[in-house]
Amino acid sequence: MPERTRIRRLPQRAAYDRATIDSILDEALVCHLGIVWDDAPLVVPTLQARVGDDLYVHGSAASRTLRALAGGIEICLTVTLVDGLVLARSAFHHSVNYRSAMLFGRAELLEAAEEKRRALEAFTEKLVPGRWPEVRPPSPKELKATAVLRLPIGEASAKVRSGPPLDDEEDYERDVWAGVIPLGVRRLWPEPDAELKSGVELPAYLRLDRHFEHTDSQSTG
Amino acid sequence: MPERTRIRRLPQRAAYDRATIDSILDEALVCHLGIVWDDAPLVVPTLQARVGDDLYVHGSAASRTLRALAGGIEICLTVTLVDGLVLARSAFHHSVNYRSAMLFGRAELLEAAEEKRRALEAFTEKLVPGRWPEVRPPSPKELKATAVLRLPIGEASAKVRSGPPLDDEEDYERDVWAGVIPLGVRRLWPEPDAELKSGVELPAYLRLDRHFEHTDSQSTG
Repeated sequence: MPERTRIRRLPQRAAYDRATIDSILDEALVCHLGIVWDDAPLVVPTLQARVGDDLYVHGSAASRTLRALAGGIEICLTVTLVDGLVLARSAFHHSVNYRSAMLFGRAELLEAAEEKRRALEAFTEKLVPGRWPEVRPPSPKELKATAVLRLPIGEASAKVRSGPPLDDEEDYERDVWAGVIPLGVRRLWPEPDAELKSGVELPAYLRLDRHFEHTDSQSTG
Repeated sequence: MPERTRIRRLPQRAAYDRATIDSILDEALVCHLGIVWDDAPLVVPTLQARVGDDLYVHGSAASRTLRALAGGIEICLTVTLVDGLVLARSAFHHSVNYRSAMLFGRAELLEAAEEKRRALEAFTEKLVPGRWPEVRPPSPKELKATAVLRLPIGEASAKVRSGPPLDDEEDYERDVWAGVIPLGVRRLWPEPDAELKSGVELPAYLRLDRHFEHTDSQSTG
């Protein structure tokens, strides 16, 4: 394993297996893509989608970041999910539960229209499974305007913290509440476009999504 | 404005005012911190907390990243909130609603114990307002083991997408549902530590949190 990929701080939280890494990539919509630009770091948030052993990012063919990436420069791509607030008895041991994945490598620009189309299908289906067959597919002109980059998942690691707070032995007797506040991303009720064509109903693949909230919190945002 | 901070792609989404930037920093727990390490990019997720015109990050004094930061190297610090899935009538116009902030600069290591203590108070209070006065404060040894870095908020920008999908004129007549699926981070019901001292109840500052969910989704995780 390359030295930079070996996790040194808290190595008990490290994981290098693809199942762990893939599950983090697949759950997260956004990655933070780091490159060196004019000798300085640049960290850009962008959507990512995995297909097998490749991670895809995409954007405008005119974007400076994507053009730099297409040149085969080195990338560090990091994805982070925050799962909970960890409340310990001491300030020092407060923490968060999280899962993060970090990939290193160089990206390759997709050239073939069919390959680009398949990658864009993966992005659309990641947002909402079942969506792709219903929408207008990309035109040749749109495909040309979209840069899609493939980063093979090779040099990769994950770091995971889960579970309760870990306090110093002498602090367990303190009269202070300790535990975890889980955090979850929820999909709220769909908001139809004001320009929605009359008679178009919410499709089944959106109605059936079990993640929607049907509580009072909808109305309060 | 330095050239790298000016947003060139979709400049109508750019914002440079501190109110917008601060609100993004304050809502997000985690930032992605980019540095150049051995001539390659490195992007590390870490908690961040703002106090006035300074952004703080912290970690183990033994961390290689924090030691590198303490040397005054250049940083790019990016924070991203994903607010919704934007479902357009064409695949091409699918998007997400988001708010991101990007800061450039060099960080300074805090030396004074009192200043470090105040920064740690900001981190704890950001997780749960009202928490700090109740927990054991950091000992001199703990303060020494914690590196706290301050990045003045100077060269900074925000990028925001909100609102409905924007389709091509000829696509509005299509029989396809379009709109936004809002995403929200929810705090679920607190899970007490199994080692919680008998008789310690959930404190008022946790009970009163209106973000908790009281729905069936609690039990299914």
